[in-house]
Amino acid sequence: MNLEQYLASRRELVDKALDDMLPGEDNEPAILHKAMRYSIFAGGKRIRPALAMASAEAVGGKPAEILPLAVALECIHTYSLVHDDLPAMDNDDLRRGKPTAHKVFGEAVAILAGDALLTFGLGVLSLPNVARMYRLDRLVPVIHELSVAAGSTRLIAGQVMDIVFEGKEVTPEIVGSIMANKTGALIRASLVCGAMLAGGDSEEVGILGRFGELLGTVFQIRDDLLDIEGDPAKLGKAVGKDNTRGKATFARVVGTEKTIEMMQTLTTSALETIEPLGKRVEPLIAVGKYIGIRTS
Amino acid sequence: MNLEQYLASRRELVDKALDDMLPGEDNEPAILHKAMRYSIFAGGKRIRPALAMASAEAVGGKPAEILPLAVALECIHTYSLVHDDLPAMDNDDLRRGKPTAHKVFGEAVAILAGDALLTFGLGVLSLPNVARMYRLDRLVPVIHELSVAAGSTRLIAGQVMDIVFEGKEVTPEIVGSIMANKTGALIRASLVCGAMLAGGDSEEVGILGRFGELLGTVFQIRDDLLDIEGDPAKLGKAVGKDNTRGKATFARVVGTEKTIEMMQTLTTSALETIEPLGKRVEPLIAVGKYIGIRTS
Repeated sequence: MNLEQYLASRRELVDKALDDMLPGEDNEPAILHKAMRYSIFAGGKRIRPALAMASAEAVGGKPAEILPLAVALECIHTYSLVHDDLPAMDNDDLRRGKPTAHKVFGEAVAILAGDALLTFGLGVLSLPNVARMYRLDRLVPVIHELSVAAGSTRLIAGQVMDIVFEGKEVTPEIVGSIMANKTGALIRASLVCGAMLAGGDSEEVGILGRFGELLGTVFQIRDDLLDIEGDPAKLGKAVGKDNTRGKATFARVVGTEKTIEMMQTLTTSALETIEPLGKRVEPLIAVGKYIGIRTS
Repeated sequence: MNLEQYLASRRELVDKALDDMLPGEDNEPAILHKAMRYSIFAGGKRIRPALAMASAEAVGGKPAEILPLAVALECIHTYSLVHDDLPAMDNDDLRRGKPTAHKVFGEAVAILAGDALLTFGLGVLSLPNVARMYRLDRLVPVIHELSVAAGSTRLIAGQVMDIVFEGKEVTPEIVGSIMANKTGALIRASLVCGAMLAGGDSEEVGILGRFGELLGTVFQIRDDLLDIEGDPAKLGKAVGKDNTRGKATFARVVGTEKTIEMMQTLTTSALETIEPLGKRVEPLIAVGKYIGIRTS
């Protein structure tokens, strides 16, 4: 399997689903729907959707059948970036090589566009024409998983801790907990929900959840390393910001070298976790390996 | 029926449900959960929950059985206030006689607490111990109604228009459209979802939806009138702000007297709408009449 082609084909499917499902810019107020689409189509890699689709495949499902979940995940992820970039938060001007939402549309519209993406992400699976694709006793638990992952004890907890611990002394445990919440929760939910919606049994869902938990931390470590040694042109944003802001990262606590080792160990553990699932995990292994070596 | 006692007993039920269901302040990060509870327990009148419960009664349901919906409505409503009060939006320092969330917890935590209340509100009906209380073919459409009412074409559309039209020339049609979205959508959803969850048929749900649409505009008109002639001590906030900011209100477009007339006409139409539902609408009529005469 050629990983680049594979990810590109997944991205194409997801981008089409997003374009089909999100309200068009002709809906009033146009500025709000423009802002939502601006951030959604700013060049995301669609990693969470790719993981959800690979997870569905791992339990014998068809990737295209869980596209509404892919849309939900990407809307929730994008909302978290839009709000994270706000002046009151990380105050970032660039994301994926483009001005951030609040630079283009102003702070008020950026906040509201984030709110709207979150609302759409949590609501899309209950749309009548989507809900009728699934067994409701599978769909409702998926909505539950998504809202917990995006909620005050996981994703938002991570965002709050990320801000609260800026410039503070931190332990590796605190860094791990921030990562697990800020990034791990939604990555884990991608895998868990992909498998649940595709009819995976509780053992399979459990295995994929543990894989997601480990992979989420790998993803965030790689993100932090790219902020140290990445190419700003490839990343589409400035680097070195974590250091300037005193962000809680493993690199700051244990050094870059030890952080890379940790990332490799976590990747190996993650890949071992899904071995019992057999041969259908090939795409998951490929995406899993990519997370820790990606350059953007 | 003594309306004050009736509303107080409803409020007590809803406040207990909110306290039971929202994550406690002992959950990390404590500052986030404190901020969520601070805004939720800042003295709201719980009008939307009262309407949802009265709507459930109107179709033969038991009010206590839809308390999780009441929690959802109040969390979504409160999130919208927290974000609306932000410096980038209406920049309000006081709400219900208390400093607004961003004054107490800072802007970043206020944004994230709003996000968390929205996420909780849209997720609470899918909690395993809540979902098992209902038929899933009723529950999923209710989640759908809530997310549409809170979404980019309704509540958030209204917020955007409210900001965009500040200080601009507006027609009565534009004012009506802002009110219908900003306030009407969630009031309508309170009635529609209360009836749906309690097993109302599509005709009943349709009638209650039209009642809610009309009542939502009455609610917002009364809000705007209170900003002109209300008692700041009773309201717990400054008055006269709409005028200072050039907000799009009926009072500005057609004058106070004509606005009061419109409100009375709309209230009468709303109450006529629910006549076909028979005797079980007594609580709904009482709350409906209260909306247009309330002093806070």
